[in-house]
Amino acid sequence: MTRNWQDIAKAKQAALFKSIPKEWLIPADLMPSESQLDVTGFPKESGFFTGNELKYTSATIPELLQKIHSGQWKAADVAQAFSKRAAVCHQLTNCLSETLFPEALKRANFLDEHLAKTGKPVGPLHGLPISLKDNFNIIGKDSTIGFVAWVDQPATYNTVLVDLLTKAGAVLYVKTNVPTAMMIAESVNNTFGRTVNPLNRRLTSGGSSGGESALISFGGSVLGVGTDIGGSLRIPAACTGIFTLRPSFGRFPTALAKSGLAGQEAVNSVNGPMARSLDDIEFFAKNVVGAEPWMLDPKCLPIPWRPVDVGKKLRLGVIWNDGMVVPTPPVRRALKHAVEKLQQAGHEIVDWEPELHQEAVDLLGEFFLADGAKSVRDILAPVDEPFREEMQAYSEAQEIGVHAMWQLQAQRSKLCKDYLDRWTKAGLDGILCPTTPFASVEHGKFKHVGYTGVFNILDYSAVSFPSGVAADRQLDKAESGTKPLSQDDAQIQAEYNAEAVHGMPVSLQLVANRLEEEKVVAMTRVVLEGLGAAV
Amino acid sequence: MTRNWQDIAKAKQAALFKSIPKEWLIPADLMPSESQLDVTGFPKESGFFTGNELKYTSATIPELLQKIHSGQWKAADVAQAFSKRAAVCHQLTNCLSETLFPEALKRANFLDEHLAKTGKPVGPLHGLPISLKDNFNIIGKDSTIGFVAWVDQPATYNTVLVDLLTKAGAVLYVKTNVPTAMMIAESVNNTFGRTVNPLNRRLTSGGSSGGESALISFGGSVLGVGTDIGGSLRIPAACTGIFTLRPSFGRFPTALAKSGLAGQEAVNSVNGPMARSLDDIEFFAKNVVGAEPWMLDPKCLPIPWRPVDVGKKLRLGVIWNDGMVVPTPPVRRALKHAVEKLQQAGHEIVDWEPELHQEAVDLLGEFFLADGAKSVRDILAPVDEPFREEMQAYSEAQEIGVHAMWQLQAQRSKLCKDYLDRWTKAGLDGILCPTTPFASVEHGKFKHVGYTGVFNILDYSAVSFPSGVAADRQLDKAESGTKPLSQDDAQIQAEYNAEAVHGMPVSLQLVANRLEEEKVVAMTRVVLEGLGAAV
Repeated sequence: MTRNWQDIAKAKQAALFKSIPKEWLIPADLMPSESQLDVTGFPKESGFFTGNELKYTSATIPELLQKIHSGQWKAADVAQAFSKRAAVCHQLTNCLSETLFPEALKRANFLDEHLAKTGKPVGPLHGLPISLKDNFNIIGKDSTIGFVAWVDQPATYNTVLVDLLTKAGAVLYVKTNVPTAMMIAESVNNTFGRTVNPLNRRLTSGGSSGGESALISFGGSVLGVGTDIGGSLRIPAACTGIFTLRPSFGRFPTALAKSGLAGQEAVNSVNGPMARSLDDIEFFAKNVVGAEPWMLDPKCLPIPWRPVDVGKKLRLGVIWNDGMVVPTPPVRRALKHAVEKLQQAGHEIVDWEPELHQEAVDLLGEFFLADGAKSVRDILAPVDEPFREEMQAYSEAQEIGVHAMWQLQAQRSKLCKDYLDRWTKAGLDGILCPTTPFASVEHGKFKHVGYTGVFNILDYSAVSFPSGVAADRQLDKAESGTKPLSQDDAQIQAEYNAEAVHGMPVSLQLVANRLEEEKVVAMTRVVLEGLGAAV
Repeated sequence: MTRNWQDIAKAKQAALFKSIPKEWLIPADLMPSESQLDVTGFPKESGFFTGNELKYTSATIPELLQKIHSGQWKAADVAQAFSKRAAVCHQLTNCLSETLFPEALKRANFLDEHLAKTGKPVGPLHGLPISLKDNFNIIGKDSTIGFVAWVDQPATYNTVLVDLLTKAGAVLYVKTNVPTAMMIAESVNNTFGRTVNPLNRRLTSGGSSGGESALISFGGSVLGVGTDIGGSLRIPAACTGIFTLRPSFGRFPTALAKSGLAGQEAVNSVNGPMARSLDDIEFFAKNVVGAEPWMLDPKCLPIPWRPVDVGKKLRLGVIWNDGMVVPTPPVRRALKHAVEKLQQAGHEIVDWEPELHQEAVDLLGEFFLADGAKSVRDILAPVDEPFREEMQAYSEAQEIGVHAMWQLQAQRSKLCKDYLDRWTKAGLDGILCPTTPFASVEHGKFKHVGYTGVFNILDYSAVSFPSGVAADRQLDKAESGTKPLSQDDAQIQAEYNAEAVHGMPVSLQLVANRLEEEKVVAMTRVVLEGLGAAV
């Protein structure tokens, strides 16, 4: 009996829903109406959570660890609280793909017993709940990354990072939704449907790590791990006003994760933390690198987490627009505000022309499509799943030969050399620029990954951080009469809806050179101080 | 007027010969007869060199630098001495591709003047002559890498390493011969012909850095730089009994060098030093890494040259044969000798099965040929240069598509992960194994790059070092009656000629994990002490 892909998807969604304990299902009388756009107030306002549950899920990482490791809080209680809040978030935003609620509780109980018995945590992350993007393989759980054919194909091995985090004491309790093949900048696929933004459910939480960003901005996770090959950490972080670090390839282990374009290496996917504070981002980075992941993943680099002193005065290049798309008004204002504040704080800000950005972004697209989407097609085929309209470029892609690929790779190598030379000559500490053209945007309207994608081609380290500025329907009115830089630019400016994004946080991107993760984190701290914003 | 490729090649050879000053041409009465196989004694025995010239060209690097930096020796005199000895080596072994004799003298004079004026060297390599493999671009000089069509196409920019070494004070005076496209394990091409081994001119000096190995083993260079994508540093070093370090990709800068397979990145070419001592190898590594090449080459890793303590007792895996080819008798004996000596010295030696080696070597071949040799064909075409018979695999190669390439890359990533896991589980410090199946071998008979190529796929750090054992016609007789492991094995054993290789030094390979260059150098020092051999 062959089932069609729609039935498989429905069954998978139902099974996911069924994995939520009945007592965590939002009662009808508490369920926000569909017209309620901002649901982030639900946990505190609904009365559906106990005081302890709210306390656990609102704590910072250092607080959680201190209380759990001292025995004041039970890891099991914390795991249950986060599991419940994640389950509730899913009901409001459709952010999950897999749940591990019983496994998490069992693991947390084990950790509590271990601590009680030995007086010692099993590792630095003992008892810390961590949410993971769907592509991290966990034995016994699907990693569909949105593909219907991969439903009910549970992983037979763990991704390296899963083993590393578990060994360090983490409690894994959910995996989160992504777009098909993780190759769309909004989180929508034929298996689970669409994840929405808990700050405004008419808007996207971004993609491809948009299940994570929805979950974290709702408070359903204190620390999540996403991935990024063109902006997939930074775009969802920006759409929800949280922090992320896109590391250069080789700092954090990526081995044995699921991919829609397996074996594609011309531009490498990386993973990184997503969280509500910069400190939490650094905490993850220190601990993952501190676990010496190069002993586990042959592509990891034996570079410890290094002390860095960036000084008090930074020299930053600012990109007002990337020559392809002008940021929408709230982003322009946030960037202008940031530059003014940083100049007042004594930092040196120079205009940085987006030379080579168009070429880099074109290359990125060519790399993604180089196999003529055969990889994606092969995964869609068994259940006749169609290409989603967002993946039109894939449905039309033609495979190129290896010789053509080598020419593109040589072109990329030259581009990276030229960009580095210009950077070095300019004596930059970093680049400050938009993360995306948007604060966030209505579903289906996200366009242009150019602001993030260029740094995937360059493999530079980058942080996306909330700028402290929120979109304002009065201050951020659409402009008219300016000549568009491109077709995407024309459409983005035409579709800009000041009303729709009113109140949304605006994020910016700070970029350091390759393998300067420590520096980009330290610089972000300096920038946030300059902005008077929260670290 | 179109010239055929043979005429272009002849003219290039003539121009190269003409670039040798008349006074450095070996007089007819001093010229060794063609039947004289070992010409390494020529400098000291012929009377063609002055005492000073012999002194300069026999000095170690520390001695050279100390004398030059203290003003006792003139950089100009040293440069002239090495230029002359290199010119003589070329006449005896055909090892050069380009000469920079006037440029070197001018540069050395400048350095001498600078030192006299300021009392300070311009950098740590002030006055040190360094020879370079032909693929390093130097403005105004060809980098034919053996292709006739690239004759009289002088470089318009320097390879990054050329700038780095020059800035540090090095004096560049020659570039050295390679095989076509650097993709043959002997150094022979249609432009310059064949480089022969100065220790025995009937034998190969190896390839692809075989001009370097000939030059260095003759004393015409104290320090050379070659490259390695399947064994091209280690094979020629082994064929001539000198030292080399194949680093993992990213330690030394590779940007802007010439390649026959431009844009090929599935396995990365690296460069490294070749010299007569391990200390000289480490000297190069320290100085190149110390120059922070990651500021110049975007593919370089910001990893300083790190202190390392390998302890006094090593745990080494030994590979007696790689499952494809049994080493020829002198190599088997040298390896056995080394293992016994190391065991006596208290080191732990365990057998290391060559699991995955065949698969790795197969992948290496598939990567090289993945573009159907279009790249090579495009370079041969303008002058109708034919494929050499050594490149038959290229002449028959079929291009694959990017989708197939991604599958191979995914296979390679899995292989690297599996190999690392086995290594870690075994708790190895390193692997001791043959560098090649040969001490050296008669021209045209080199086969099987498996012992080196596997570590290109794995990107592990490796040193090839002279074991202290020399081939002996009495001790290293051919065996018969053993079942060959492969067709190559059968042919290698059948062609083994104890008489031909009598007296040749036998080298071995010591391998550490990825990016463990400091460790593999330190371990080699420990191993050499164990063998009672020269460092």
